[in-house]
Amino acid sequence: MTTDDPIRTAVGERDETAPERPRFPIRLYDTTLRDGLGMEGISLSLEDKLVLARKLDEMGVHYIEGGYPGSNPKDADFFRRAHELGLRHAQLVAFGSTRRAGGDAATDPAIAAVLDAKTPVITIVGKSSARQVVDVLETSEEENLSMIADSVRHLVARGREVVFDAEHYFDGFRDDPEYALATLRAAEKAGARTVTLCDTNGGSLPDEIVIGVRSARSAVACEIGIHVHNDADIAVANTLLAVQAGATQVQACVNGWGERTGNANMISVVANLKLKLGIEVVSDEQLARLTETARFADELANMIPNRSQPYVGQSAFAHKAGLHVAAITKSAGSYTHVDPERVGNTERVLVSELSGRRNIVEKLREQGVELELTETQARAVLAQVKEQEARGFQYESSEASFELLVRRSLGGYRAPFDLEDFLIVERRRHGRDDDESEMQAEAMVKVRVGERLSQTAADGNGPVSALDLAVRRALLESYPDLKRVHLLDYKVRIINPSGGADAAVRVLIESSDGLSLWRTVGASTDVIEASWMALQDAYEHWLFHHGREPQRADRAAPRD
Amino acid sequence: MTTDDPIRTAVGERDETAPERPRFPIRLYDTTLRDGLGMEGISLSLEDKLVLARKLDEMGVHYIEGGYPGSNPKDADFFRRAHELGLRHAQLVAFGSTRRAGGDAATDPAIAAVLDAKTPVITIVGKSSARQVVDVLETSEEENLSMIADSVRHLVARGREVVFDAEHYFDGFRDDPEYALATLRAAEKAGARTVTLCDTNGGSLPDEIVIGVRSARSAVACEIGIHVHNDADIAVANTLLAVQAGATQVQACVNGWGERTGNANMISVVANLKLKLGIEVVSDEQLARLTETARFADELANMIPNRSQPYVGQSAFAHKAGLHVAAITKSAGSYTHVDPERVGNTERVLVSELSGRRNIVEKLREQGVELELTETQARAVLAQVKEQEARGFQYESSEASFELLVRRSLGGYRAPFDLEDFLIVERRRHGRDDDESEMQAEAMVKVRVGERLSQTAADGNGPVSALDLAVRRALLESYPDLKRVHLLDYKVRIINPSGGADAAVRVLIESSDGLSLWRTVGASTDVIEASWMALQDAYEHWLFHHGREPQRADRAAPRD
Repeated sequence: MTTDDPIRTAVGERDETAPERPRFPIRLYDTTLRDGLGMEGISLSLEDKLVLARKLDEMGVHYIEGGYPGSNPKDADFFRRAHELGLRHAQLVAFGSTRRAGGDAATDPAIAAVLDAKTPVITIVGKSSARQVVDVLETSEEENLSMIADSVRHLVARGREVVFDAEHYFDGFRDDPEYALATLRAAEKAGARTVTLCDTNGGSLPDEIVIGVRSARSAVACEIGIHVHNDADIAVANTLLAVQAGATQVQACVNGWGERTGNANMISVVANLKLKLGIEVVSDEQLARLTETARFADELANMIPNRSQPYVGQSAFAHKAGLHVAAITKSAGSYTHVDPERVGNTERVLVSELSGRRNIVEKLREQGVELELTETQARAVLAQVKEQEARGFQYESSEASFELLVRRSLGGYRAPFDLEDFLIVERRRHGRDDDESEMQAEAMVKVRVGERLSQTAADGNGPVSALDLAVRRALLESYPDLKRVHLLDYKVRIINPSGGADAAVRVLIESSDGLSLWRTVGASTDVIEASWMALQDAYEHWLFHHGREPQRADRAAPRD
Repeated sequence: MTTDDPIRTAVGERDETAPERPRFPIRLYDTTLRDGLGMEGISLSLEDKLVLARKLDEMGVHYIEGGYPGSNPKDADFFRRAHELGLRHAQLVAFGSTRRAGGDAATDPAIAAVLDAKTPVITIVGKSSARQVVDVLETSEEENLSMIADSVRHLVARGREVVFDAEHYFDGFRDDPEYALATLRAAEKAGARTVTLCDTNGGSLPDEIVIGVRSARSAVACEIGIHVHNDADIAVANTLLAVQAGATQVQACVNGWGERTGNANMISVVANLKLKLGIEVVSDEQLARLTETARFADELANMIPNRSQPYVGQSAFAHKAGLHVAAITKSAGSYTHVDPERVGNTERVLVSELSGRRNIVEKLREQGVELELTETQARAVLAQVKEQEARGFQYESSEASFELLVRRSLGGYRAPFDLEDFLIVERRRHGRDDDESEMQAEAMVKVRVGERLSQTAADGNGPVSALDLAVRRALLESYPDLKRVHLLDYKVRIINPSGGADAAVRVLIESSDGLSLWRTVGASTDVIEASWMALQDAYEHWLFHHGREPQRADRAAPRD
């Protein structure tokens, strides 16, 4: 262990106390498809895993750990179909564990299973904590070393590149550093190309990580990997510090998926390595795929994307305070640490009551809306935004409603449809038993599209769903393509709480046509009216851009 | 700047190169109510802010920054009402900025506004980046130093403890370290008790933070604060490293709220300081409130809680992998870095019938409900809670509904009223002008109180308000005192977002009788039904405790 500055040494200066060792380039080892799937609420099909593997390859990771074939038949299938992937960049890795205590690597079924995966690289996990060897594995420290050595040697002899995952390395190092290092030496001696230091419980602090990595560097000459979890909310920092201290193979998961609080977030790690530490771990083109890859993974897993996610979240480069917006226009980068385009994200200006005229113009430009506003028009739009916000609307994240507000205010705008009347009836009847009381909701609507008036009705699971279904039914007669549009999210928020049930409410709706996503807003003292306003904007925005010409239901609609 | 190990020195060893300086205890400075509200999608009412301030006080933060009275009338109101809070622990802080360039602190309206807030502590922000002074402030470096000094001096002369927020300190230090340090010296010399180093753009790396803090320590003898953003996904680690390097006043926001990617997460920071660094920044009891506080804040802001949030998320101590579950049963803590109970969270696989039952009993005791449950009864309640939660109910912050659930399950409970039927009609008619279309909502209800059946009707501003008014009209006939009860807040949250307008919703209602405050919950695919469930519980809870005897409307009700 050295006593000079671990961070400084790791960054640039030469550590004179470490033995002469080969230099390895920094490489990304993705474990989303194995460790990442330990996340609560995530379950990917085999097809999903194959699609995601291809995305990861395009983003430029060097290793893709596809699964644990010894424990999971789906993972074995993944490897059987992996040749379909045609990976252009990444190497596939199968994951397994060391042979059983007292067993033989040559006949161990789990070892056989990882070999059956036929991957060029195999990672096997073994224990590096003396305490865990005794308490959990219930074997001796010596036998654990043999288990590591035998397993690695067996796999290397069969032509595989082997990574040894040193489970609980940092906890083990804290308790018994000599034993933790002995497990690394056993793996290296048996032919492992890499020993990966795992902060399995995710509770280690930065200085413990730095010291643990540097000690490993002094103990072995092979490549060193790092694998950390986020239980103390510092996984990304720990990963960077490990790299600065000499680790070169970086394990992480897309969007920080993983058991409990997740693994280190691959997206943040890649952006930080490339943009902050200047390590060319991916190309510029690959870096620009980060945002798309992060959102793709969430879509695939049906997770609501984290808006605040560093680098790639929708809010990551969004500015609310007027002060900040003014500063940005004076000096680009005043409130952004990197250029958002480098990671495929965009700078957004949030329109709110606090904002000035400049926000309006900026916002339209940024949304790609081709509208040139005169000073007078911009001022009028701003006045209208303020008036609407006083009523409870909020345009901060409802870009589609904002765009419609601007278009409507400019004159010459023709709405694709009008809802003339609606009537909603909701009834609850008390059954004999309390639990049997049932609700009925029904809506009747009159919708005009051009000269055509449609009158439709629908039942729903509630008044909003009944209204939505009745309106859709009417609109589909003229715009059959609208069937592609569906609601993703529906949120209601009270605005003036002291009003109780009389208070105004704000409804935010998120819609998608499978390709793009847009948000709309409504506000009223009446939750149904507010919902209708947001629904109307949701359909109107899509129709304005995709369905300008009303269609007869009996002929196919042209695609745009 | 020293050249020895910055982390090691900060942790324990003495830094011989730093001047002799007073020792400050580590204190928590919460800026959730100011900087935290820059988060996209968050908007708290004045009432919300007051309630959250009280929660933060209970959790043990030392400073609560309540807002920016100079920029925002709602924040000025907050300080006017702050005396209602009766804070037991924290000091209130008002936030403002330095006087304008070329102006006079004595007549500056923003300086006057922070003084008007009448808080013991005032934080003022000023620029520490020479580049920003010239490019954004468009003034000279000397004038900026005068702006800092004048403003601090003016506030100190009026008896305030002053914190100087050194905006862009770390970026400024990178460009021009001497100027960045000069701004700190100017603030210290003018009487600031604390200079807080801000990583305003959130892009600094750990080593930059450590070097920046240590340089500040060498430059000034006053207290040093740290304020970082999460743009590089390392805010919590940067905060801890800053503390290890000598910062003692720690700024952060609950759940990492804040503009763009958020501020450092106060919850994670507190847990790490106390459990990892052994700093007694809060008591054990306060630490055990972390989970409750984090979830309360999300509920209040209508944010979906992050399941993977370190320490307090629902998954933070949940185990999915069979391997881990097996290990845990052999050796507690095999896959958890800290004892979840210390932060008020629970390990999920280990939630046995027994510990779940204990939660029920604890929860009742904590609410002051005097009910002794037998083992069988507690088990039955637990089963019902689980069943209801599967339908979308949530009792974490709806204590009144939880108490009613328990009472209803015990037998012998008689509800103070029954809603037998209701019918709601809502109609929208298109006027000649688009803006003239009007909504009508009407409700008819049958309510039974004992033997008495009331049939009433009411118009409302929407279906829920019509229903509420009709029910109140019926209940007031029997319980005239109920007029004291009113709704404070009404929130709707979608539960399964992918269902669109058909998705199940959860309604949370907060009610008050002017003295106490209680929360109730309802869940259904129908927003009106869910609202009714929550309304019913709101009235029933109050009537159970205050209006057991139905009263005739023609004689005065006794007060209790």
